[in-house]
Amino acid sequence: MKLVIGDKNYSSWSMRPWLVLTHFGVPFEEVRIPLAEDQTQASILAHSPSGRVPCLITNDDITVWDSLAICETLAERYPQHAMWPRDAAARGRARSVSAEMHSGFGDLRSNMWMNIRASFPGKGATPGALADIARIDAIWSECLETYGGPFLFGEFTIADAMYAPVVMRFNTWQPKLSEAAAGYARRVTEQPAVKAWISDALREGHDIAKYDICA
Amino acid sequence: MKLVIGDKNYSSWSMRPWLVLTHFGVPFEEVRIPLAEDQTQASILAHSPSGRVPCLITNDDITVWDSLAICETLAERYPQHAMWPRDAAARGRARSVSAEMHSGFGDLRSNMWMNIRASFPGKGATPGALADIARIDAIWSECLETYGGPFLFGEFTIADAMYAPVVMRFNTWQPKLSEAAAGYARRVTEQPAVKAWISDALREGHDIAKYDICA
Repeated sequence: MKLVIGDKNYSSWSMRPWLVLTHFGVPFEEVRIPLAEDQTQASILAHSPSGRVPCLITNDDITVWDSLAICETLAERYPQHAMWPRDAAARGRARSVSAEMHSGFGDLRSNMWMNIRASFPGKGATPGALADIARIDAIWSECLETYGGPFLFGEFTIADAMYAPVVMRFNTWQPKLSEAAAGYARRVTEQPAVKAWISDALREGHDIAKYDICA
Repeated sequence: MKLVIGDKNYSSWSMRPWLVLTHFGVPFEEVRIPLAEDQTQASILAHSPSGRVPCLITNDDITVWDSLAICETLAERYPQHAMWPRDAAARGRARSVSAEMHSGFGDLRSNMWMNIRASFPGKGATPGALADIARIDAIWSECLETYGGPFLFGEFTIADAMYAPVVMRFNTWQPKLSEAAAGYARRVTEQPAVKAWISDALREGHDIAKYDICA
């Protein structure tokens, strides 16, 4: 199985399925393509007919692109792993908060992009980004209270992988969070698969200038 | 089972799970809440703790919000219906194009909102919206060619429900489409569940002024 991803420092969408595969110990080959270069699109197209990352290509040659579609496909193919919560009510809520992350929070995305190596405390805090952060804080706090932590639905699931890039943004931009949300962000940062991704990002050595500056 | 939705004329996200339930003959109670009124938020919160539509509440009291999360939940709960394609490769692609729709096409969304009763031919055609339309046309054309139609993956699936609101937008704004895409849009418009939704939208009688004008 092959997972085509972008730069670990910048590609928030790539991070999600990589974490799920790594955390649950599913063997896969990683194909990393530096983004924002002249040859990027051609390099992606050589693996992924959609021209998009992340893209999963299974051993039986099934191609799936988009982070959430890949996660659903993995959950279906590896039922021995609790990639989604086993309890139906928790799973319904995990899918809800994952889908809300997947389609929403545009102000956060555009004002606080993922750049693991950078530190931009206090910047990017537009009213829209702050409203997104408040909603994310509420989602995390409610899940942690309902399911008791340490992760959103107890053990680490796809829902945590969906929000892990947000934790990376929060580490870079350092918005004010509730105590519950800040504690969750620390636990995600220390989670072994997340730590491995961060460590790779720090050593990556491919810069995209426009994401390295925040006015 | 209860599905909480917004106005059928305007609520593109509500349309998707409603079509899946209706097309596959799953019995449900529809709770329609007029959007953009003073009491809208309170009315939604009475049913949906997230304050969002669409929201599914099952008989065993599982609450799921967000169109794609609801569709995945329905596919899981009703395996007797081919809500996703039965073939794994087709299902992988159906999930990919559905997720791409779910998280993308922001320019199309903001410039060509859903208003089934309106007709705005030739308007809203910003470069971003046209790029989104070109990508959607390519997705539809490739699926129709690969799987032979009449719908994206043969028979009507969640993927068609995910794109049905786009067809409604195309009927209103009438952008230029390839022959294959235009034919698909006509077949979706004539699909019985879609026709039933349109018919309800035409008789609905609740206007949201800001969506009824296109400068």
